[in-house]
Amino acid sequence: ICSSLKVKASNPPNIIIMLMDDMGWGDLGVFGQPSKETPNLDAMAAQGMLLPNFYTANPLCSPSRAALLTGRLPVRNGFYTTNGHARNAYTPQEIVGGISKDEILLPQLLKKRGYISKIVGKWHLGHRPQYLPLRNGFDQWFGAPNCHFGPYNSSVRPNIPVYNNTEMVGRYYEEFKINKKTGESNLTQIYLQEAFDFILEQHASQQPFFLYWAPDATHAPVYASKSFLGQSQRGRYGDAVMELDDSIGRILSLLRSLHIENDTFVFFTSDNGAAVMSGPNESGSNGPFLCGKETTFEGGMREPAIVWWPGHIKEGSVSYELASVMDLYPTSLALAGISPPDDRTLDGLDLTPVLLWGRQLDKLMPIFFYRGNELMAVRLGQYKAHYWTWSNSWEEFKAGINFCPGQEVPGVTTHNQTEHTMQPLIFHLGRDPGEKFPLSVLSNEYQDALGRISSVVEQHQKSLVPAAPQLNMCDLAVMNWAPEGCEKLGKCLKAPKSEPWKCDWPH
Amino acid sequence: ICSSLKVKASNPPNIIIMLMDDMGWGDLGVFGQPSKETPNLDAMAAQGMLLPNFYTANPLCSPSRAALLTGRLPVRNGFYTTNGHARNAYTPQEIVGGISKDEILLPQLLKKRGYISKIVGKWHLGHRPQYLPLRNGFDQWFGAPNCHFGPYNSSVRPNIPVYNNTEMVGRYYEEFKINKKTGESNLTQIYLQEAFDFILEQHASQQPFFLYWAPDATHAPVYASKSFLGQSQRGRYGDAVMELDDSIGRILSLLRSLHIENDTFVFFTSDNGAAVMSGPNESGSNGPFLCGKETTFEGGMREPAIVWWPGHIKEGSVSYELASVMDLYPTSLALAGISPPDDRTLDGLDLTPVLLWGRQLDKLMPIFFYRGNELMAVRLGQYKAHYWTWSNSWEEFKAGINFCPGQEVPGVTTHNQTEHTMQPLIFHLGRDPGEKFPLSVLSNEYQDALGRISSVVEQHQKSLVPAAPQLNMCDLAVMNWAPEGCEKLGKCLKAPKSEPWKCDWPH
Ligand SMILES: [Ca+2]
Ligand SMILES: [Ca+2]
Repeated sequence: ICSSLKVKASNPPNIIIMLMDDMGWGDLGVFGQPSKETPNLDAMAAQGMLLPNFYTANPLCSPSRAALLTGRLPVRNGFYTTNGHARNAYTPQEIVGGISKDEILLPQLLKKRGYISKIVGKWHLGHRPQYLPLRNGFDQWFGAPNCHFGPYNSSVRPNIPVYNNTEMVGRYYEEFKINKKTGESNLTQIYLQEAFDFILEQHASQQPFFLYWAPDATHAPVYASKSFLGQSQRGRYGDAVMELDDSIGRILSLLRSLHIENDTFVFFTSDNGAAVMSGPNESGSNGPFLCGKETTFEGGMREPAIVWWPGHIKEGSVSYELASVMDLYPTSLALAGISPPDDRTLDGLDLTPVLLWGRQLDKLMPIFFYRGNELMAVRLGQYKAHYWTWSNSWEEFKAGINFCPGQEVPGVTTHNQTEHTMQPLIFHLGRDPGEKFPLSVLSNEYQDALGRISSVVEQHQKSLVPAAPQLNMCDLAVMNWAPEGCEKLGKCLKAPKSEPWKCDWPH
Repeated sequence: ICSSLKVKASNPPNIIIMLMDDMGWGDLGVFGQPSKETPNLDAMAAQGMLLPNFYTANPLCSPSRAALLTGRLPVRNGFYTTNGHARNAYTPQEIVGGISKDEILLPQLLKKRGYISKIVGKWHLGHRPQYLPLRNGFDQWFGAPNCHFGPYNSSVRPNIPVYNNTEMVGRYYEEFKINKKTGESNLTQIYLQEAFDFILEQHASQQPFFLYWAPDATHAPVYASKSFLGQSQRGRYGDAVMELDDSIGRILSLLRSLHIENDTFVFFTSDNGAAVMSGPNESGSNGPFLCGKETTFEGGMREPAIVWWPGHIKEGSVSYELASVMDLYPTSLALAGISPPDDRTLDGLDLTPVLLWGRQLDKLMPIFFYRGNELMAVRLGQYKAHYWTWSNSWEEFKAGINFCPGQEVPGVTTHNQTEHTMQPLIFHLGRDPGEKFPLSVLSNEYQDALGRISSVVEQHQKSLVPAAPQLNMCDLAVMNWAPEGCEKLGKCLKAPKSEPWKCDWPH
């Protein structure tokens, strides 16, 4: 506790969160990727701390990112749907909602201590004007509000805009090229340059900064710059990983060149597990874990995580502490010497004792696995209990969409939503990280684990107040027809008339 | 070529081969084990070279070990069976056969340059007197001829003897305790001490040595010493890995303490993939690979591999070269400056250009995957073609024996022996290391790969001369009833009368 004063008394560190898109735990060399495409991330781990038990808050983009920036579970911050039971929802451009005004985003709080904040890359918390980054605490933005799906025929559906701060500067597949046939795009290089410019500018102005670096090259359609295409052992996806790894190496080198590596806390992770349903050309690896993106198995929610802060974090250390993307909010606040808001429940914990002093947290923090507002599973210590299991529906599965390709565990990767609340499936994730061998319900081990988990779940559910769901309504009229700045570019399109409907979330 | 003279001209290096038993590729931190139990192996990789594309010659103990010591495929050195189609065979104590006198084992050749050779741990090339290590080139042995199965009722089946050189010094479960309930045994500590004593003794006598260190703590029934039990995140198996990792760290430290690290070539690997059919308490992880021990999928035959030789091998390097346990024979001979035998086909290649100078081999070496004398699959470059697929039989599978738990790939992990010789299943192992997505037979990529692989297979099969199979006959009379030295200990047992039968190899 004394030593934490040291951090607060000195100048607060710069904070960089590097968030990858759909990159899997198993995509890093240090986490077992056979093709070893990540020498810079492996070196980052060797110079910092590896967190093998790090989780996202939700197995897909938007709710995961909302959780990161609010420190709260999607069910608490509104980034979920109630249109069906246990459904995943995100922010395609027909979504009406976005991040709620009731939430306080991390950059809003960091302002209190003079931080300048920039997001580079994908936002995904709503694309309508009131939901954009500069209306929600960020000072700067270069990137896009949605995924880089496309190209679209502008009369039916606009291409996704790319913004520089409050104004669009072009659209994907138009000014910002992505060649879906070859996989070529220089977007990662643009996002790298934006990071460089921001760091150099803040360094010159001597102001602490928060950089939220969120490139999306590893989200389908996967892309890489020309000089990286064909360089990896595993095709286009690996090429994208190599380019991101190279970019991260360059950012860390820049920090060292500016002699601010001791003043800059860097956290690397991904927003959800590898999208294994997209096949090997367009998705990564979840290592030993079951299934991937969209599911509440480990493959959907266990994330690669590395913390780097030379002089403060022990080189080459490993912490087995259970932690999540929601911890980044209170942790960043602690680093900045700012008190967290006291008018709301946070789902994250301040990890500084773990990261800076290698301590164990006093409390065994559970990890909650949600789909929509349904608590599917809970991890406590080494044990994970599944109250509901579901991969995807028989209809989707029979149509060839497989969330667990090559991994069917009878009674576990169920294609019906299967309730186990009376007798949850329990796995020991140390011995069985792949969730293949449920403990026998007759064993003492099962009963002990269940007893401890049940009381945690009861406490969690008793005190949980769900927010109003923001991801229930869709409307073609709200799409990116005429983003701010479109007039200057002559790129405004005409919106159809508003006809809202309840979005259909199939899985 | 010039620089290879350097090696030959100076004193030949000591050679240590550390061979683990049933340890999986995914059991090392550096290959993705979430529980990160191998800080010493990870450091060994950081100080040496990692080989992510390293293979065994067969997915189970005996033929893999025979291939290591002969540099030849089991079908060539006789360590296989023809009792059924495509069956795995090994050396239980009822086996009649053993390593053929026609084979030249590595230590026999190393003698030419004055090497003293010791095997510590499991032999598994036949337990009858003529097949034991000191009759086959080794100067010293401490260990056992078979697996540590048991305990047995001595009237029906003797416990496995532990030898010191030519004489037994006790038996497993008798003088050498293994507590199957708690998993406690100090055997790894004994094997560590034997390695220490040998290294110190050879160092004192200034003779080059070959140490074949083959502990078997990670083979079921898995065991660890008391001080390691309960220390890992994943139960008894992880505890055994931690103890082996610790032992390896101590051996490397000893080399440094004696200042012979620059004179000692150390190779770490495992004999076959993790035995995932044994469940999580008794087996390890094959990382992203399909199935495990006994199968010709990657999980059965891809092995962790690290080479360490400070001052000679570049620190922190990675080679993607395809290589196998059979390469250790010509590689060791090259290091020792000894010509390989010219009267026989070797299936390994001298890897020194790869290891010492980071070169690529001139020739794209194929990896052959056999069960018995059937060529099941071939890897060439990134492509692997399966000519036959089989996990295990329906009978075994229905009896609860699952060689691919949680991994069923339709048409790939077949429970019937399925022939694909007219149209092999082909996978790109870079993009798809888990063998989940066969290439479309209509694609150019498939046709190109098939063309190249077919000519390699044709050449291989045309020139292959199978040896007489050594693993066809069984007989209870040949079991370890009265090993040499039993009289001194009063531990001789009476053999039943000889009734040989054709061994039944079910998978
Ligand atoms: Ca994502
Ligand atoms: Ca073995």
